[in-house]
Amino acid sequence: MTDPIRRRLLQSSLVALVTASASRGAESENTAMHATTASAFSHELQPKPLPFDPKSLRGLSEKLVTSHWQNNYVGAAKALNAVRKKLHALLESDDPPYMYNDFKREHLVRTGSVVLHELYFGNLGGDGQAAAEIRTELAHAFGSFDAWQSEFVRIGQGLGGGSGWVILGRNEHLGLLENYWLADHATNPPFTRPILVMDMYEHAYHMDYGAAAAKYIDAFFDNINWDTIGKRLEAA
Amino acid sequence: MTDPIRRRLLQSSLVALVTASASRGAESENTAMHATTASAFSHELQPKPLPFDPKSLRGLSEKLVTSHWQNNYVGAAKALNAVRKKLHALLESDDPPYMYNDFKREHLVRTGSVVLHELYFGNLGGDGQAAAEIRTELAHAFGSFDAWQSEFVRIGQGLGGGSGWVILGRNEHLGLLENYWLADHATNPPFTRPILVMDMYEHAYHMDYGAAAAKYIDAFFDNINWDTIGKRLEAA
Amino acid sequence: MTDPIRRRLLQSSLVALVTASASRGAESENTAMHATTASAFSHELQPKPLPFDPKSLRGLSEKLVTSHWQNNYVGAAKALNAVRKKLHALLESDDPPYMYNDFKREHLVRTGSVVLHELYFGNLGGDGQAAAEIRTELAHAFGSFDAWQSEFVRIGQGLGGGSGWVILGRNEHLGLLENYWLADHATNPPFTRPILVMDMYEHAYHMDYGAAAAKYIDAFFDNINWDTIGKRLEAA
Amino acid sequence: MTDPIRRRLLQSSLVALVTASASRGAESENTAMHATTASAFSHELQPKPLPFDPKSLRGLSEKLVTSHWQNNYVGAAKALNAVRKKLHALLESDDPPYMYNDFKREHLVRTGSVVLHELYFGNLGGDGQAAAEIRTELAHAFGSFDAWQSEFVRIGQGLGGGSGWVILGRNEHLGLLENYWLADHATNPPFTRPILVMDMYEHAYHMDYGAAAAKYIDAFFDNINWDTIGKRLEAA
Repeated sequence: MTDPIRRRLLQSSLVALVTASASRGAESENTAMHATTASAFSHELQPKPLPFDPKSLRGLSEKLVTSHWQNNYVGAAKALNAVRKKLHALLESDDPPYMYNDFKREHLVRTGSVVLHELYFGNLGGDGQAAAEIRTELAHAFGSFDAWQSEFVRIGQGLGGGSGWVILGRNEHLGLLENYWLADHATNPPFTRPILVMDMYEHAYHMDYGAAAAKYIDAFFDNINWDTIGKRLEAA
Repeated sequence: MTDPIRRRLLQSSLVALVTASASRGAESENTAMHATTASAFSHELQPKPLPFDPKSLRGLSEKLVTSHWQNNYVGAAKALNAVRKKLHALLESDDPPYMYNDFKREHLVRTGSVVLHELYFGNLGGDGQAAAEIRTELAHAFGSFDAWQSEFVRIGQGLGGGSGWVILGRNEHLGLLENYWLADHATNPPFTRPILVMDMYEHAYHMDYGAAAAKYIDAFFDNINWDTIGKRLEAA
Repeated sequence: MTDPIRRRLLQSSLVALVTASASRGAESENTAMHATTASAFSHELQPKPLPFDPKSLRGLSEKLVTSHWQNNYVGAAKALNAVRKKLHALLESDDPPYMYNDFKREHLVRTGSVVLHELYFGNLGGDGQAAAEIRTELAHAFGSFDAWQSEFVRIGQGLGGGSGWVILGRNEHLGLLENYWLADHATNPPFTRPILVMDMYEHAYHMDYGAAAAKYIDAFFDNINWDTIGKRLEAA
Repeated sequence: MTDPIRRRLLQSSLVALVTASASRGAESENTAMHATTASAFSHELQPKPLPFDPKSLRGLSEKLVTSHWQNNYVGAAKALNAVRKKLHALLESDDPPYMYNDFKREHLVRTGSVVLHELYFGNLGGDGQAAAEIRTELAHAFGSFDAWQSEFVRIGQGLGGGSGWVILGRNEHLGLLENYWLADHATNPPFTRPILVMDMYEHAYHMDYGAAAAKYIDAFFDNINWDTIGKRLEAA
């Protein structure tokens, strides 16, 4: 068997295995609510429910969490659907390409908001206790678990008073586990699997903490669902 | 065997298989030159050579391609290494977090530039002929191959005269194959595997085409390495 | 007398007149607290007090307004002073220019925040009633006062859930009175005198209105100090 | 006569004087080609011709300068006119406000491009020799003329390989003469009169200098029209 053909067959088997695996758990948080066969121009996103009871978080009020989910996440999902319809309608338009791009930018911003919000809510609802093996993996990448946490928190503090996100992500191209500063929904590292996602838009904390972003960051850490983080690290 | 344990074992096997596969080809364009065990704070990137003879492209001069690779890509790689050292040195600094973030932003911009440039050069050097199975896959996602190409080109045309990128990418979170407009190196969709990457910074074409971005886009399509695209689609 | 010399003399007289005028009122909201002779590298900004009693606004709580002023505005002023000192220290540094620019970007962001916040607080504290002559001037530029207000409000509504500003400004280069959408503190039209400034960062309303940005915009309009707007229009 | 009325009358006289002055010179570079009475929604911009012979610059080729003027500046002016028409048509649209803002963003980007390009071409075509009084004024603001130039050049060098502008501007709100880093056409300091404007988009130099941004900056300085700078400083 030639090398390219061997590889291609191996790949096919891998795809089958990954699909099988995904259907059993590791990836299911991402794909459960999204059709995978829809067209780039006709896909309609169904917002996902919160994966935890909004009353159950420590230090983040039901009012805040519900508003965040309803107004910012569901709002972004609806906007994304509306923008996709608009783009579809404009495919044959005579408007200049830069006007089409004005909506492709909105498409990117809303895509960023939807994906990051789903990952954010998806990594809350836990007890804030990282298992030993996760601590070890982060220590391996950052020198120590504390070094990782210290940089992640620092980036968040620096974003206080504005907009943005902090993510721990695995850059699949560079093969690196890193923390990233994001200015807004559309600012992201390319080819990167988000592992832990923290929203630093003021709608994530102002109702409960006002301008005290540092207190919100503490509350965020108290509610991290490290089981989810473990699955994301495995899947990477 | 319980379900979680079965899954975890399956995952481990998968990792082994993927690693084996990668060493044989599909992923090797990404990982060959990058160490995967380096720390987030001490990683030193080694620029990759051009994966094709810079004299060999149709309609893109050796002078342009060499300058692009040397000044923009290698320059970004060196800057990324310098910024990482700076961040390492600042970890214990008393400067306020927003000043640390000024360098995390530079870290993000340079990471984006390095990754996107490697993928860009990686998808050039071919004969511009897409295999039937790839055309089918894009037709499946966009309605038709022409619909895909038409939107991809339009986004590129709209970026003429400024900076930015166009990518066809698989959004791994949403399970969608889509075209994305990127304003600059740090603008990206989250959790997305780039499949085809086109640089629209003026350094990608001005030497050869001046302001005639549309001619550059034609030349880009004439040189796409669709084998690479096929491998990236398989890996996704 | 030659024309250039006449003009130059006329200019000098104008400067004297403007200076005299400024000391009597029209411009005094801007210059009262700022030294005008300081160096680009050593200027130290003194935050201005709120120009109204924070208890006195209709529909915007003392808690919100005080937090906004203290945390966001005074915070930006302190950061601007710190960044200027940092830039001064780095003038002789061997760091590459792009690292210097990381702080010049921070300098721009903080400058934008300071100036826009001062203008924002400066145009609050009034009774929300625009004098006839102002309504006429806006009608002249926008077709009708309502057309102006309708666009200004719409831009604000579109910014809900994120960050940004809306300004009515006089573009001194184009000779146009226009409404502008600003994505953040550093997004601005060039060569433009702000006339009415509305903060759409979530810190401007979340404490009082949660995600209900439209209600905040109503409250903002109820408190516009149209006397200030009149003076800014005259000065333009 | 009461103080407010005195001031208002003084202002009116000032306006008359300034208008008279403008018609004779100082401001005429800005206003000559722009109608000042047009509505925010119906204004149509007439591109200005180059204020110098494109063959006459030292170290910047006719081909480069003509392409820059035609493709980037005139292109932006046409786009601005098209966007204004689009906004006018959308005033009564039922689309959500964030879609209206997608075009307000384009409006801002194109406004920035038009204004900055006019100021850029307006400050070229000279002999590069700054008069003593200008050197003195810059020395007053920056410590020395060399300190000013050194920072201005450094910001430009840091922008090499991407997009952006460097401006020396008078921040009319803060009363400061400063250098500013701009990432793109829409990044600007608020309430600032540009004095010297340098384009760092790659279309400003790639045809002549490739990636050698530093050589372009030298050529830019060789062609500065310091008479124009003097007039802008006077007008400020």
